[in-house]
Amino acid sequence: MPTIHPIILSGGSGTRLWPRSRRSHPKPFLPLLGDRTLFQQALDRASDSSLFAQPMIVAGEAHTRFIAEQAGEHRLVVEPAAKNTAPAIALAASLLPRDAIMLVCPSDHHIADEQAFIAGARHAASLAADGNLVSFGIAPDRPATGYGYIKLGDSLGNGHRIERFVEKPDLERAREFLSSGDYVWNGGIFAFQAGTFLDELAAHRPDMAKAVALAVEGGSWSGNRFDPDAQHFDAIAGESVDYAVMENTAQAAVVAADMGWSDIGDWNALFEARSAQGSSDTIISGAAEVKSAKSVMIDTDGPRVSLIGFDNAIVVVDGDEILVLNRDYAQGVGKLEGATNQ
Amino acid sequence: MPTIHPIILSGGSGTRLWPRSRRSHPKPFLPLLGDRTLFQQALDRASDSSLFAQPMIVAGEAHTRFIAEQAGEHRLVVEPAAKNTAPAIALAASLLPRDAIMLVCPSDHHIADEQAFIAGARHAASLAADGNLVSFGIAPDRPATGYGYIKLGDSLGNGHRIERFVEKPDLERAREFLSSGDYVWNGGIFAFQAGTFLDELAAHRPDMAKAVALAVEGGSWSGNRFDPDAQHFDAIAGESVDYAVMENTAQAAVVAADMGWSDIGDWNALFEARSAQGSSDTIISGAAEVKSAKSVMIDTDGPRVSLIGFDNAIVVVDGDEILVLNRDYAQGVGKLEGATNQ
Repeated sequence: MPTIHPIILSGGSGTRLWPRSRRSHPKPFLPLLGDRTLFQQALDRASDSSLFAQPMIVAGEAHTRFIAEQAGEHRLVVEPAAKNTAPAIALAASLLPRDAIMLVCPSDHHIADEQAFIAGARHAASLAADGNLVSFGIAPDRPATGYGYIKLGDSLGNGHRIERFVEKPDLERAREFLSSGDYVWNGGIFAFQAGTFLDELAAHRPDMAKAVALAVEGGSWSGNRFDPDAQHFDAIAGESVDYAVMENTAQAAVVAADMGWSDIGDWNALFEARSAQGSSDTIISGAAEVKSAKSVMIDTDGPRVSLIGFDNAIVVVDGDEILVLNRDYAQGVGKLEGATNQ
Repeated sequence: MPTIHPIILSGGSGTRLWPRSRRSHPKPFLPLLGDRTLFQQALDRASDSSLFAQPMIVAGEAHTRFIAEQAGEHRLVVEPAAKNTAPAIALAASLLPRDAIMLVCPSDHHIADEQAFIAGARHAASLAADGNLVSFGIAPDRPATGYGYIKLGDSLGNGHRIERFVEKPDLERAREFLSSGDYVWNGGIFAFQAGTFLDELAAHRPDMAKAVALAVEGGSWSGNRFDPDAQHFDAIAGESVDYAVMENTAQAAVVAADMGWSDIGDWNALFEARSAQGSSDTIISGAAEVKSAKSVMIDTDGPRVSLIGFDNAIVVVDGDEILVLNRDYAQGVGKLEGATNQ
């Protein structure tokens, strides 16, 4: 088995987990599930040195102070501007040998079953070594409308060819996908050889590939930190790796993994991930009393919360902000005044 | 018209309005409706010197510091122990001339229509001057199960004889009472001559009457403050004026008053009193944002409250306590840990 290079992307702002997640303490760096932060858990999952090389972290400047506090030995690539995932991954690929196998991991997801993750990483790395660009597919357990779906194509042994991508379907289509058994969610985790990725980027997004090459050429290392040339990087049109590369390449493959994955995309997703860990449907962090209410989560950093008579309530207290949320409305949090004007 | 002596009873703890009402800042002394506190509004209503004498306030020691801050000129009777309303009223009656007409008013109710209150007070005083013990009856607007009901008897011109009292009926009976038109709520406001009251107390509760007489005999004035003898007062078995006197006397009368009365008995009652003052069903004090929710009240002393997706929610923030309440469960607040262990 060749060594796998973990590439940890630290970008998400997590506004739908406001007010716990804020610019001053963003989602990846919060201990939302257990004692370790989501970012630390992403590093922990790729820490077995018999399988993984030292991680490379790609992040914006605003995250570097949290990374310094929370990460051990690593290399850090600082994005001069937020340009979505394709340019971030291209930076990392440009700094690795062409034959290095990269495993690109978001830093703000949760994976309950680490053994399943490792097994998936092995399969993905093996497919990547054969020249495939591999996406981790998550076995869907509900007709979610907030995710991208991947239709499984021909078998490749360790995985499948990707037949097509479908971005955020409506509920009816999501139900069809779920019942067909032919679809998985796009988990945002990818594996490929650095050289293969750069070749495919050059083929499908030549401008982006050129701009990244110039940004790397003009950049500089300082200890373990690499700063690309800002002028060339700023000029890039931001795009996700899905749109820029995965949906265009003929070498797209998918490894299906059933690993208790969640993107912790909103408070309801966090409620469900916490519920899955425990035995109660009343999940309390901090001082609280709950009466006449089921399926409730209370998370307070100080004041006691006393709740009476609302099923499916989520109450979050974070200093000067209090959120009282019906779980069915969890997607609306990011549009609150507090979340937009942080 | 003879002068009316306002007797302001300051006793209620208001635990169902916790956490805004607490031992450290009890219900009567909070500006729950408008800029003046409920206690100040009780004084304001009886401040017309062409009709009212200087008020006499009967209160426990714990309330005296709030009274000193919030009341103007008055006489103060300090109860050595909480013994419900009958002994408190008897203390006041004992310190007035026998022919003085008393108007006994709780300090933690709200009356929206002061003109109707004054008209009621005139009618009640006139009946009291004829030797009646007069209760203020409130025209019911819903089949409330938390109040005492009074059945109207024969007309007395300015009011009615009381046919009978019914304490907290079940919903079915409350509905019957409401549709019959023969019942009013017992508003907890009373008028009688001091001597008449003491005579009836002696007739129906001779032990209480004796103990109060001894407590007054052994008590002492200091400036405007009267302290009864604690030993005699402590020995009294506490009882409400309704049970001790009103339900037993043959001279019970009632004046029906439609004056926008509320006992502000819980958060839902406060919601309704505030709704009646304004035009919106979303009532906000302090920093708040409300989305996808109707008939909501938010009352915060600091942190911003962002609420999504719960109709009929009441959220109260008071320092180290946060209450999230479904209006249908307002009666349950007094039983919360926070409210019981203040």
